[in-house]
Amino acid sequence: MADAEWKSLEECLEKHLPLPDLQEVKRVLYGKELRKLDLPREAFEAASREDFELQGYAFEAAEEQLRRPRIVHVGLVQNRTPLPADAPVAEQVSALHRRIKAIVEVAAMCGVNIICFQEAWTMPFAFCTREKLPWTEFAESAEDGPTTRFCQKLAKNHDMVVVSPILERDSEHGDVLWNTAVVISNSGAVLGKTRKNHIPRVGDFNESTYYMEGNLGHPVFQTQFGRISVNICYGRHHPLNWLMYSINGAEIIFNPSATIGALSESLWPIEARNAAIANHCFTCAINRVGTVNVFLCSFKAHQDFGYFYGSSYVAAPDGSRTPGLSRSQDGLLVAKLDLNLCQQVNDVWNFKMTGRYEMYARELAEAVKPNYRPTIVKE
Amino acid sequence: MADAEWKSLEECLEKHLPLPDLQEVKRVLYGKELRKLDLPREAFEAASREDFELQGYAFEAAEEQLRRPRIVHVGLVQNRTPLPADAPVAEQVSALHRRIKAIVEVAAMCGVNIICFQEAWTMPFAFCTREKLPWTEFAESAEDGPTTRFCQKLAKNHDMVVVSPILERDSEHGDVLWNTAVVISNSGAVLGKTRKNHIPRVGDFNESTYYMEGNLGHPVFQTQFGRISVNICYGRHHPLNWLMYSINGAEIIFNPSATIGALSESLWPIEARNAAIANHCFTCAINRVGTVNVFLCSFKAHQDFGYFYGSSYVAAPDGSRTPGLSRSQDGLLVAKLDLNLCQQVNDVWNFKMTGRYEMYARELAEAVKPNYRPTIVKE
Repeated sequence: MADAEWKSLEECLEKHLPLPDLQEVKRVLYGKELRKLDLPREAFEAASREDFELQGYAFEAAEEQLRRPRIVHVGLVQNRTPLPADAPVAEQVSALHRRIKAIVEVAAMCGVNIICFQEAWTMPFAFCTREKLPWTEFAESAEDGPTTRFCQKLAKNHDMVVVSPILERDSEHGDVLWNTAVVISNSGAVLGKTRKNHIPRVGDFNESTYYMEGNLGHPVFQTQFGRISVNICYGRHHPLNWLMYSINGAEIIFNPSATIGALSESLWPIEARNAAIANHCFTCAINRVGTVNVFLCSFKAHQDFGYFYGSSYVAAPDGSRTPGLSRSQDGLLVAKLDLNLCQQVNDVWNFKMTGRYEMYARELAEAVKPNYRPTIVKE
Repeated sequence: MADAEWKSLEECLEKHLPLPDLQEVKRVLYGKELRKLDLPREAFEAASREDFELQGYAFEAAEEQLRRPRIVHVGLVQNRTPLPADAPVAEQVSALHRRIKAIVEVAAMCGVNIICFQEAWTMPFAFCTREKLPWTEFAESAEDGPTTRFCQKLAKNHDMVVVSPILERDSEHGDVLWNTAVVISNSGAVLGKTRKNHIPRVGDFNESTYYMEGNLGHPVFQTQFGRISVNICYGRHHPLNWLMYSINGAEIIFNPSATIGALSESLWPIEARNAAIANHCFTCAINRVGTVNVFLCSFKAHQDFGYFYGSSYVAAPDGSRTPGLSRSQDGLLVAKLDLNLCQQVNDVWNFKMTGRYEMYARELAEAVKPNYRPTIVKE
């Protein structure tokens, strides 16, 4: 399996394929080739200075007579944890705040309206360890923890909606932990929060050691720039999770994730993109990048946990998608969306209109009964 | 957009990428490179004589202690209509029967246990026309029409389960038409039928001119070789349709389709493969190939209907997939599956266990109510 040296699928194809073939490959793989955004030079300079990748692409929609284009710029951030996982907790959090502040400043130069960070962005991804301290110390109040206050400042300073996925400590309900995304309006106000609905029990990823399935349903956040939802990590494997956000009106669904190569790299380009197609919405898949030894125990088998392969991307309701960010480097992906595309594709394909949800609500309600007998036709 | 000359994505990648890069591209795109099946020489010779492509791949599963491997060979057939669409109906049907017989004989040489033909395989894809005669004359009884009897002979002769998607005339319920797949046991008995659950209303593809949404739910057919279902064509866009077949126990879901390049070619590699991943099952996506002028009216705009791009493929529960058959040629794709892989992947990823279907049954039942108000959080 490729290590970090193999930068990305797209770079490899660009390097080796002759132009007419490259165009066909991109059409089959990505729907079409998206226009690159003309981002400001100082943004590229700052990204280079801060050592992260910056890419920008535009999705276009047809002109309409009665609606103006509904343009929104989204920003997806993937980043390593700057300090080792055994550094003091407060120092790790501060270093991450500084790193994200630098990236958000570049996003602001690029006109980003809504930005989303990676899953549990204020900490190393330690849920694989089953160890409690010090990892549980990274948990914060969603409403007024230091990270939320930090993000409120960013949001207000840059007139930017901030989606901040953190480990939440819920002091009003038995001090339990949740895997939560806080949504902060561009005014700086906390708009609300949403929780990870599906919790993995896959190998080292049994995160139910720390938190359970979210209890906030499928809320949609009406921002000044469009209606957004957050499907956290493992929820991307569950088509019904995407569907309910979409039925509730989400036009952009962010999917902040943390997933490693051996487990999921070939699934990664499929699932969020299928969700964009199936639900007539934009999806933004964000993965961590790099590797960090989070195991403080001495269990040797666990020193090499695996490689977070980055490759964050945006997919559109027409099935097109951006290339992925690098597999190995911190990055900011800027995408210019025209949200009119959602309704336009909806009107072409009509998956909601033809979805027969009454039938499925009924069939699912039957299927979950302990005495359910499926229709199996035998000779 | 590529015409028929551009044979396939895979051929293009094989031609231009150096080996180490090709391996990485295949890993990211396809999960892994599958072993090619060692099919008999006489099968390749017969395929070449009959002018169709023959490809074969093997999916493997881990060895278990208590279960033996559950090996099944599936065959996917994509083919042009041999005669022009204005030839007499009976001649068109006979020519298709002959063509399929020749392909099935090669499938038998390859040890195929279950074979599936393309959607409405006994006719040109004329549902785009909105014309009734002669197209409605292609409809037959699912239980004892000439095509079902033809398939019963094939099934019995070759000890092969046959999935035969046809236009059905239901004489016991008002003589209405359905888009139906007949499932015939390897004994030659008609095991049952299943109907297309989702009917497109997309441009020329408004097939509700001919038939409506299926009323048979999501049956699964227990064959000697494994439990199968048939998700016909447009149902592949609906994740809930795949899900219900899977909840009812399907290990292999066939998706006989008819779809054209401009509309869906970039969606094609995504949807059936996502369904295999999301449902821990094998999916078999079959598309027509070629183009035929089915418009008997003089409406000029409609002479060029579009190009059926073939590219039939099999996807596995672990996210891996075969290359696609050609975009331009008739073909038979043979895949050797070990059905043990379904439960093995289920036990790793646990999407059913973590699916929270009770919650979704409840949420969907609410969401379909006319007075439903979704949770939208505003500032």
